[in-house]
Amino acid sequence: MTQQALEAARRLAPRFAARAAGHDRDGTFPVADFADLREAGLFGLMVPVELGGSGATFAEYAAVAAELARGNGATALVFNMHASVTGALGAVDEDLAEALGVPDEALAARDALLRAAAEGAWYAVAMSERGAGARLSQLSTEYQPVDGGWQLKGSKTFCSGAGHADGYLVAARSAADPSVVSQFLVPATGDGLRVEPTWDSMGMRATSSHDLHLDVTVPADRLLGGVEGLALVIAQLMPHWLVASYAAVYTGVARAAVEAAAAHLNARDLAGLPAVRARLGRADAAVAAASLAVAEAARRVDEAPGDAETNRWVWRAKLLAGTTAAEVAASMVEAAGTSATRRGHPLERLYRDARCGSLHPATSDVCADWLGIAALGGDPDRDTATPRW
Amino acid sequence: MTQQALEAARRLAPRFAARAAGHDRDGTFPVADFADLREAGLFGLMVPVELGGSGATFAEYAAVAAELARGNGATALVFNMHASVTGALGAVDEDLAEALGVPDEALAARDALLRAAAEGAWYAVAMSERGAGARLSQLSTEYQPVDGGWQLKGSKTFCSGAGHADGYLVAARSAADPSVVSQFLVPATGDGLRVEPTWDSMGMRATSSHDLHLDVTVPADRLLGGVEGLALVIAQLMPHWLVASYAAVYTGVARAAVEAAAAHLNARDLAGLPAVRARLGRADAAVAAASLAVAEAARRVDEAPGDAETNRWVWRAKLLAGTTAAEVAASMVEAAGTSATRRGHPLERLYRDARCGSLHPATSDVCADWLGIAALGGDPDRDTATPRW
Amino acid sequence: MTQQALEAARRLAPRFAARAAGHDRDGTFPVADFADLREAGLFGLMVPVELGGSGATFAEYAAVAAELARGNGATALVFNMHASVTGALGAVDEDLAEALGVPDEALAARDALLRAAAEGAWYAVAMSERGAGARLSQLSTEYQPVDGGWQLKGSKTFCSGAGHADGYLVAARSAADPSVVSQFLVPATGDGLRVEPTWDSMGMRATSSHDLHLDVTVPADRLLGGVEGLALVIAQLMPHWLVASYAAVYTGVARAAVEAAAAHLNARDLAGLPAVRARLGRADAAVAAASLAVAEAARRVDEAPGDAETNRWVWRAKLLAGTTAAEVAASMVEAAGTSATRRGHPLERLYRDARCGSLHPATSDVCADWLGIAALGGDPDRDTATPRW
Amino acid sequence: MTQQALEAARRLAPRFAARAAGHDRDGTFPVADFADLREAGLFGLMVPVELGGSGATFAEYAAVAAELARGNGATALVFNMHASVTGALGAVDEDLAEALGVPDEALAARDALLRAAAEGAWYAVAMSERGAGARLSQLSTEYQPVDGGWQLKGSKTFCSGAGHADGYLVAARSAADPSVVSQFLVPATGDGLRVEPTWDSMGMRATSSHDLHLDVTVPADRLLGGVEGLALVIAQLMPHWLVASYAAVYTGVARAAVEAAAAHLNARDLAGLPAVRARLGRADAAVAAASLAVAEAARRVDEAPGDAETNRWVWRAKLLAGTTAAEVAASMVEAAGTSATRRGHPLERLYRDARCGSLHPATSDVCADWLGIAALGGDPDRDTATPRW
Repeated sequence: MTQQALEAARRLAPRFAARAAGHDRDGTFPVADFADLREAGLFGLMVPVELGGSGATFAEYAAVAAELARGNGATALVFNMHASVTGALGAVDEDLAEALGVPDEALAARDALLRAAAEGAWYAVAMSERGAGARLSQLSTEYQPVDGGWQLKGSKTFCSGAGHADGYLVAARSAADPSVVSQFLVPATGDGLRVEPTWDSMGMRATSSHDLHLDVTVPADRLLGGVEGLALVIAQLMPHWLVASYAAVYTGVARAAVEAAAAHLNARDLAGLPAVRARLGRADAAVAAASLAVAEAARRVDEAPGDAETNRWVWRAKLLAGTTAAEVAASMVEAAGTSATRRGHPLERLYRDARCGSLHPATSDVCADWLGIAALGGDPDRDTATPRW
Repeated sequence: MTQQALEAARRLAPRFAARAAGHDRDGTFPVADFADLREAGLFGLMVPVELGGSGATFAEYAAVAAELARGNGATALVFNMHASVTGALGAVDEDLAEALGVPDEALAARDALLRAAAEGAWYAVAMSERGAGARLSQLSTEYQPVDGGWQLKGSKTFCSGAGHADGYLVAARSAADPSVVSQFLVPATGDGLRVEPTWDSMGMRATSSHDLHLDVTVPADRLLGGVEGLALVIAQLMPHWLVASYAAVYTGVARAAVEAAAAHLNARDLAGLPAVRARLGRADAAVAAASLAVAEAARRVDEAPGDAETNRWVWRAKLLAGTTAAEVAASMVEAAGTSATRRGHPLERLYRDARCGSLHPATSDVCADWLGIAALGGDPDRDTATPRW
Repeated sequence: MTQQALEAARRLAPRFAARAAGHDRDGTFPVADFADLREAGLFGLMVPVELGGSGATFAEYAAVAAELARGNGATALVFNMHASVTGALGAVDEDLAEALGVPDEALAARDALLRAAAEGAWYAVAMSERGAGARLSQLSTEYQPVDGGWQLKGSKTFCSGAGHADGYLVAARSAADPSVVSQFLVPATGDGLRVEPTWDSMGMRATSSHDLHLDVTVPADRLLGGVEGLALVIAQLMPHWLVASYAAVYTGVARAAVEAAAAHLNARDLAGLPAVRARLGRADAAVAAASLAVAEAARRVDEAPGDAETNRWVWRAKLLAGTTAAEVAASMVEAAGTSATRRGHPLERLYRDARCGSLHPATSDVCADWLGIAALGGDPDRDTATPRW
Repeated sequence: MTQQALEAARRLAPRFAARAAGHDRDGTFPVADFADLREAGLFGLMVPVELGGSGATFAEYAAVAAELARGNGATALVFNMHASVTGALGAVDEDLAEALGVPDEALAARDALLRAAAEGAWYAVAMSERGAGARLSQLSTEYQPVDGGWQLKGSKTFCSGAGHADGYLVAARSAADPSVVSQFLVPATGDGLRVEPTWDSMGMRATSSHDLHLDVTVPADRLLGGVEGLALVIAQLMPHWLVASYAAVYTGVARAAVEAAAAHLNARDLAGLPAVRARLGRADAAVAAASLAVAEAARRVDEAPGDAETNRWVWRAKLLAGTTAAEVAASMVEAAGTSATRRGHPLERLYRDARCGSLHPATSDVCADWLGIAALGGDPDRDTATPRW
């Protein structure tokens, strides 16, 4: 079934590409792309087969994401957030659930969320906050128990897909004990959610990563895992969803840049220029290598998630994809020349989109630091001055 | 008097910077910047003192341009075209005029154009054409003699300041003899000029480098130099105005990027991060070196314009400024992080503006090729397959 | 059995490393390393199982070569030549033999050469010539039929292992028809072979890649394939042995450089410096990516040797391994500091060894050109001015 | 007179170049080069005119050093140490002497040392120590007052020219008060100095930067400045001699690499290859820019030594020269190909020599950090964790 997903992604990419310029220009959410994704059943990609989904591995996700990103990186980036939520939820198997003390009713609630995804719902992530960034340990959004559930109050930023998703994964700290950070799946319906349209970015403009203000009460079973305080545990266990899932998107963006440059240059009969050929050749090799690194990281995530060596591959993938995308897109613009800098030209957009990869957490500079610590025999979890999450 | 010009540029730069985001957003021409330039007398910068101007050297121009570009690269780029026109006109001294066979009435006409500039007129350049690029030898715009002057017909592209300048330097080939390329200064007033608003670019959005369609008759004395066929001669004699004058603009853009990153990081108290410091330190050194190269090229242009060694410096300056600006801006965005990619943030604009420098003719790749030929003892005028202009 | 080979390589690498400094210093051939290789049975790595060898795939070869290179790049480079000879000979299966018109007695002779390798013989390659480089089409060494075999006369350069191998693969052109290029396996015994000790190189000093002068008669069955003119066909069919087999060596060299830097820095308690960590982290990621590219190219060589897409991966691997090794080694020296530049320090040697990878044919610049042509939809076999071999 | 010095350097450079391969091969000191330098009067370059020298500025020194380095970087590097000693001594004018409390007899002793240099003596620097590097604050060599002078005891490393100089500038700490660091000019004659031939380096092999063991008593007037504790003061006042003087050497090395590559490629008729031209063109521009940065730093050192802005230029020059030399030499080897990696080929040596520039203190990474602090508005003297000297 996942081969079908990959084929669907390949089929959809040109449609996304055809719409990408418009969404980029206007900063609008790619509603039609998401209708396509729903129709193709891709919201169930990470949902276990027994819950109606495709049961894709992380490696399969990565392949799908790269294909989607060849069409529109922004669409792939929002899809990535949904895949992260469903992927992390789906990865909590019985053993892990037992180890974490997850009660049965929480598993049932989890199953319901996943089933809904398989049937066409999709979820966004509302984790980052101004000041705290993506570090869970520094959030200011609070929750407290109330009759019939939990009350959440706070403001989130960089919430990709805000206003379009069917639900939001929200991280918050306990009002009673600030050291306890939990995650909730907040339904998009009902009052108490307000999207403030703050997203107006250089690149990845179509993600609608607006601010989300919450003052909302959710049913008790919307506490993910059913017990408080699991957020940091999950972050430690599944760093790939917080770091590596971006990487696949940016190799797709980089590949799209090479292809756009080739098309542009061929159309102008400039393929014979040695400087152009050298640029495309080196870009091609760089994208190929970064893509392999993403695939390798993903393969290891499936085999041994959270292992030290797996995490190194995750950071390598993130670092290589981010830097490669930015460098390749910059070089492709230079190969193609001024006529490719006109708004609406794919390379013009890709140059802006590609610069964003290194900036997502963990940034390229942070990945380099962690990889350096590991190469020197240290442990990035212990050898850095600041907490990772 | 030129020290005054430099001080004026420094004084104006922050005002340009304050307006830059708006013009970038809307793609509008920086009308107020140009009113400021007029008021500060900077349109007379390259006009000989005896004609009412500042009589600036090329080196003085370069210093002024870099300062203006710290405010708004687009403004500086349009100003650069005016400086090129007045600078090239002003550089035709009596000896050169005699050597080229320039008649006295043509010198008088030239003087009138320069006097007008000193009094507040400014000129744009309409040279490039679709298909021909900036190569004079491949233009399709034609002219022919008619009663009372010359008739010009054709279409130009990338005409920075189109619709706002007081006159246009137009290159065209003779309908009678296509090998003869001449230049005219076409007044903006009167019929026959039509601006087609095609400019909607990734960077340098405020230059209004629209298409200009000409079907116009100009008085006889608007043939620059008074004799036909001087365009290529002038291009050979003064390649700095065609190549190096861009360079100063991009060192200003690069410097602005470093300053914007420093301000952004200090405001967020992130100046202590080692990775940030390494990025800013290397960027600072790169900008400083490129700025020196531009200054050196400019100094040599003043001393020995058109000499082989001067031209090498011109290409070095163009190559270094273009590549440095793009690399520095990309690194500064990475140092500053996602919050600097919001539209309206200076770094967001500078990242796009900075990518354009390598693309102006002669491109970085072309400059590298010419410099390589020269380093190998060859002559780029003879050793390349395609004509330079 | 090939897992054994990989384990043997891992076991031998530290022994090679311990001897590497001495051979590098004196430019001597690593005789003891080759005794170790013989004893471990690694000369039979590429020999089909039915002829007594390990029957390794190209991917398995690449993994072994990278491990050996972590010990001593020079040893791995000479081993690579032997693997090329035995690998190419072993790859001629019955179908290919029939297609090429290889007579049965030639297959028998081939089998004998391979059996000998499995029993401990090893072969060097004498292909390059001054002036012609590695291009088969431009060789000047000639052969002609004589009673009882073939007479070969000419001079070869860059013959790694000259004076130590048991036989030499020699490419030569027919005296009767210069367009016919054939290959012979010349035994090291007997007169007519003279090694001129010309090899005194910056890096990879222990390869003994001296000049080899031939004036020798070999038995009839030493014409590889048994029919004349197969050399170019084989080169076209198996470009991986001419290009990609180097790549694995240089990823091993690059990895050794990262490890040597880490050991050096830890010993001096400098692992905490942020600049050091950033260098090691980025180097680690680059080496990991290049290694994946080599493995992917090798995997495809096994699956579809000579296919257009396989060849692209071969060029990518060659380009990435060569450039990565040089850049990584340079950065590791900078991370480790002056104390690592002392002769005898592993990094001092690795910095010199690593620079050689991009220079082996096809050079990095040539690979970039071919990849660029392919990325632009062209065919490097047709779209380059000069013949590839 | 300094124009004469520059011309002398240009005249000597080819002679140095002719000898460079031999000294590099054998690791021998360029005795004949130093005889040439003496004969040309260049040991008096930095000696004030009134003391018989050329009275060169720092900028003039930098120009001379770059020329010498085009011949042999190692010779230029040793010469640089002598220039540092004489330059720093000569820079102590009456005002500074008074401010520092330098007694008259110390000035007289200083004059004698400078006069001797003008007459043909040259001095080496014995500052670095194992463990302490070049940081004055961490030295272990001690001195104490004894009858008739000072007794010094300790071991120095990286003492370029050890065994060949006429005297050594030795930094040591007071046995009585370890916070007091002073400098002595120790004559080469007499007992108590022992050269341990430890220098056997990847690059700059001819500098004879051996270890120097001291157990020696020097006359009272060999305490430089005549009062104890001036060493750190001088380091703060004249950081250019500790940092920037290396930079000029490496621009000369880089320029030599470009020239050697051009000569090599022209001799093989390979100047027409586009990839080669691109490499030489970019290298040419990079070297030109780094050379300008060195000249600018030197100019400012003359104008305002020790000023904050001067120091920034000094770090820029050091950073740019070091990184440019290494990158340019690596690219030139790649442009020239395997035949240029033969020992004895200029590029083979230059590739090794060029890598050393970034490693001299302050290293490129340290310069980048300091420049970053300054670009962020900080003060590298206060904002780094470790003392600068």
